Amino acid sequence: MTDVPAAEVSVHLGPNKYGKAENRLVRITRDGARHEIEDLNVTSQLRGAALAGSFLTGDNSRIVATDTQKNTIFAFAKKHGIGSPERFLQILAEHFTTEFSWIEGGLWQAEQYTWERIVAGGAEHDHSFVRTGQGTRLAAVQVIDGATHVMGGVKDLTVLKSTGSEFWGYPKTEYTTLPETTDRIMATSVTARWRYLPDAVAAGIDYNALHNEVVAVLLEQFAVVHSLALQQTLFEMGRAAIAARPELAEIRFAMPNKHHFVYDIARFGLDNANEVFIADDRPYGLIEGTVVRDGVADAPDAWRDVPSFI
Amino acid sequence: MTDVPAAEVSVHLGPNKYGKAENRLVRITRDGARHEIEDLNVTSQLRGAALAGSFLTGDNSRIVATDTQKNTIFAFAKKHGIGSPERFLQILAEHFTTEFSWIEGGLWQAEQYTWERIVAGGAEHDHSFVRTGQGTRLAAVQVIDGATHVMGGVKDLTVLKSTGSEFWGYPKTEYTTLPETTDRIMATSVTARWRYLPDAVAAGIDYNALHNEVVAVLLEQFAVVHSLALQQTLFEMGRAAIAARPELAEIRFAMPNKHHFVYDIARFGLDNANEVFIADDRPYGLIEGTVVRDGVADAPDAWRDVPSFI
Amino acid sequence: MTDVPAAEVSVHLGPNKYGKAENRLVRITRDGARHEIEDLNVTSQLRGAALAGSFLTGDNSRIVATDTQKNTIFAFAKKHGIGSPERFLQILAEHFTTEFSWIEGGLWQAEQYTWERIVAGGAEHDHSFVRTGQGTRLAAVQVIDGATHVMGGVKDLTVLKSTGSEFWGYPKTEYTTLPETTDRIMATSVTARWRYLPDAVAAGIDYNALHNEVVAVLLEQFAVVHSLALQQTLFEMGRAAIAARPELAEIRFAMPNKHHFVYDIARFGLDNANEVFIADDRPYGLIEGTVVRDGVADAPDAWRDVPSFI
Amino acid sequence: MTDVPAAEVSVHLGPNKYGKAENRLVRITRDGARHEIEDLNVTSQLRGAALAGSFLTGDNSRIVATDTQKNTIFAFAKKHGIGSPERFLQILAEHFTTEFSWIEGGLWQAEQYTWERIVAGGAEHDHSFVRTGQGTRLAAVQVIDGATHVMGGVKDLTVLKSTGSEFWGYPKTEYTTLPETTDRIMATSVTARWRYLPDAVAAGIDYNALHNEVVAVLLEQFAVVHSLALQQTLFEMGRAAIAARPELAEIRFAMPNKHHFVYDIARFGLDNANEVFIADDRPYGLIEGTVVRDGVADAPDAWRDVPSFI
Repeated sequence: MTDVPAAEVSVHLGPNKYGKAENRLVRITRDGARHEIEDLNVTSQLRGAALAGSFLTGDNSRIVATDTQKNTIFAFAKKHGIGSPERFLQILAEHFTTEFSWIEGGLWQAEQYTWERIVAGGAEHDHSFVRTGQGTRLAAVQVIDGATHVMGGVKDLTVLKSTGSEFWGYPKTEYTTLPETTDRIMATSVTARWRYLPDAVAAGIDYNALHNEVVAVLLEQFAVVHSLALQQTLFEMGRAAIAARPELAEIRFAMPNKHHFVYDIARFGLDNANEVFIADDRPYGLIEGTVVRDGVADAPDAWRDVPSFI
Repeated sequence: MTDVPAAEVSVHLGPNKYGKAENRLVRITRDGARHEIEDLNVTSQLRGAALAGSFLTGDNSRIVATDTQKNTIFAFAKKHGIGSPERFLQILAEHFTTEFSWIEGGLWQAEQYTWERIVAGGAEHDHSFVRTGQGTRLAAVQVIDGATHVMGGVKDLTVLKSTGSEFWGYPKTEYTTLPETTDRIMATSVTARWRYLPDAVAAGIDYNALHNEVVAVLLEQFAVVHSLALQQTLFEMGRAAIAARPELAEIRFAMPNKHHFVYDIARFGLDNANEVFIADDRPYGLIEGTVVRDGVADAPDAWRDVPSFI
Repeated sequence: MTDVPAAEVSVHLGPNKYGKAENRLVRITRDGARHEIEDLNVTSQLRGAALAGSFLTGDNSRIVATDTQKNTIFAFAKKHGIGSPERFLQILAEHFTTEFSWIEGGLWQAEQYTWERIVAGGAEHDHSFVRTGQGTRLAAVQVIDGATHVMGGVKDLTVLKSTGSEFWGYPKTEYTTLPETTDRIMATSVTARWRYLPDAVAAGIDYNALHNEVVAVLLEQFAVVHSLALQQTLFEMGRAAIAARPELAEIRFAMPNKHHFVYDIARFGLDNANEVFIADDRPYGLIEGTVVRDGVADAPDAWRDVPSFI
Repeated sequence: MTDVPAAEVSVHLGPNKYGKAENRLVRITRDGARHEIEDLNVTSQLRGAALAGSFLTGDNSRIVATDTQKNTIFAFAKKHGIGSPERFLQILAEHFTTEFSWIEGGLWQAEQYTWERIVAGGAEHDHSFVRTGQGTRLAAVQVIDGATHVMGGVKDLTVLKSTGSEFWGYPKTEYTTLPETTDRIMATSVTARWRYLPDAVAAGIDYNALHNEVVAVLLEQFAVVHSLALQQTLFEMGRAAIAARPELAEIRFAMPNKHHFVYDIARFGLDNANEVFIADDRPYGLIEGTVVRDGVADAPDAWRDVPSFI
């Protein structure tokens, strides 16, 4: 195997990008005694035909070093502030694609972690915070083929309803053993990513307010929809989010069906009217779907390399 | 090596225990339309001299099967309810050590995950919940040498203060390069485990109310103590918890010092007055300490095999 | 926000799929005393226009239940055996897309874990195994638009070279502080996914032999290429793999640059000629690229929803 | 709650220690073209009565900064080399407890990751390595009450036997539903920690050779013991290790019983003679035990804060 004359095969470079991943950026705003905290995990990756030299011959003359991308992220946190992950990523994208003529595009992604003020003496403390663990905010900016796409999102938003979920009417095949049910626990950990309408991005969006509202709408829909399938709940969550915010073009979901099985305690002479469950880890159902506003142009490139589905 | 006549060495069985770990128990209370949820991860392990036969000869005649322990946990969730992890583990401990004469003791542990009601239509929903990720509740019951010890706790309670933390005055040795500071970010992920006074356990404790109060006191002290060392903050947190609740005998902490380094952007002509930080993963400081109420008898056995320090 | 009349917005269902994820399947072949083990993590997901009813109205009449998919996986492990993850996934894909007329396609993925025989008494044991942790094998089968694409791969293949790696010649910008180097540690954790040529799949491939050879070639190229950039190493690894095996159409890599920084011990009067390093976790460089055999038709659909890049 | 006068409760400082955790140290030995790699994760923690000031009043005058401990680790990797994790930790322990008169003891721990040379051109490469994932080596040095204890170990050594394991003869109680079996899969992930005899430490031990031999013996015993209980297998593994190496005083194991359940495919008209299994994650059996050489003095302090059992 080691005698293969590698030079004799003809190959070329296909899709690629490169950058610095998971820059853990904490930005404190200290205007007076009352501090603000923004806590992000930022990834920057660049694309461009001129970068091929690095792959083909190790020519780095067009490689904006990943270390330089890192420095830029932290410098820009001071120069421009964060404001929202969507805004901050747009500033980074604009910088790299204009400062370097050969950078044609790229993908910038962020997670943001939420903190709330600690209560001390009955009041919110000025500079002490506790991290809330209820979901992680997501954002991405994709520059590709001359277009800029902006996405928001959330992951690890774990929800459960203890009734109001049915599952029946599915085909009974040779390998079907699942009993139908009109009352089960439905639990999932929501990953949602939404794409903003380009016109709305151009007009300006209050991304933070929008994020809070979309998350609230997703939670509410999960609660109020009487569910015949996790698919149905997913779709209604997406429909409600798009109804609530005209800035949204589409929303993608990955929702594992985190199974909670009724534990068989009838063997011990005990009733179990959906009271005692064992939560299982694997395998799990995995439902993925997209809800799209009618009349909106498709933008498959927006999702290039974005882990929109798990 | 494979020719060693194993029979020629004399050995004996030392400390041991066995059981079923990480039983993911979800208990729904459905008294009427408004459901309650309790979500735990329960581990049960038994000890007893008579169990040696299983190790020495594979004689399982005294082995309460780990599967039996699992069934018992789920059956008891129905028969007795949960109420609080401390209460539920005490019921399990009492059962195993009285039902089986040869079970002399054991260690029962639980994590509990907190859920809050989803808000829908402006009101808390009856049966839909979202998991809060702010800390995980801990409990343990140790039965050993005829005594029963009950412990509560919390882990993964991540806190940060953006000022009000100094670190200076430490010895300058051959390998010291750290500059002193009178203003730094202090961040940690608190693991705390407290032991209840046996008399308080006997008298009855509202474990849920106590847990909420202790966590609130820990957070508040983290906020209000002007810190000269993470050690000092730890001690004041413990002192305040013990002051707040007479049921507490002692409290153990493991608190990593999650370093946030000021990012050097002066190189780019930018000031950084503690505004832009990079959060580092490893290495981290690791401060562990115990605060004990004066006059309380030591109980080292209570902590046997409990991961009180990380 | 809760008063939004959801019905007033017009939306439709976009890309979607559903199934059962992470079925942990262990297959023991017991022909005589010498057992064989195959250990997989299998995910099955289906697509089809007729599945929209489940999303839109909760009509499950075309939903092959995820539990049914799970049963099928385990039943087929007995009926058909595994052989290789590529073969097993093809059998599953064929089954679901022919048994159910409305299932137009789907994505089937697997991880495979490698075990080796324990040596006892100087010989390999018949039925006792230890898991090797050196990389996890990957496979995927995509059925889409009437075509079937088969992919192999590996992840978590962690490699390091202690010299033979340079990095210099990159643009020096306002935010560049990285010093050039002609000798550094280069370390990465290779994720590689390769697509098989459809003709080769049709003709039959010894997937297990191919997998071992490709991994060996990747490792060897990592070792022998004197590297001017991780990009260059990536490309040469891909070129060599394609040269070695005519069955390969293309290969995609995600390779984090796991930074190892020379620790500054000159402060203590100690030389450090690339001897003592601190391995950093985050941030890390992230280099992703594709090497394509010349003359091969593009197949972007093959990679739909496959996490080809991290 | 916030009005509690904290000063009115009397408390004192109990067990404590502090230091720097998870220093990711990579040491390359470059004597000539053929490099050697040692890859460790080192934690250093100190104890001493004089350290109380830091907890009680924030007096850091006796606090050897955790950053200083970190610098020392990396400097010593150059000055003294690694050799083995046991040796390196002993050097650190000796340094801190002699250099600083008030440091009475501490706990030093390490993980070590194993790399093997990549094969290129049919030969082992001089400076390119691939990480083996088959178990992680452990070491610890405890200095306490004037004594020094040295421990070795391994974790994440995942093993499975597909037959040769029975489980029956256990009590049938009200909550017992497990059927007895004379043929099951037995799988576990071995964590083992052994304590060296002080005399052997004083006389000098080839820790690397010993480690390899003990791991081989553990694996072999797992394979050859016909098991009636995982407890029995654990004990025989320990007995064999102690028989093989006179330097060992005792060995502690934590062995989860990683359940593999026979998948019920009889429902589909298929036999399953222990051929098709589903590997379950949680809950799992958890068997912990110690095997002690007869005549060896107990050393419970050696295990203080060492996570000997999970």
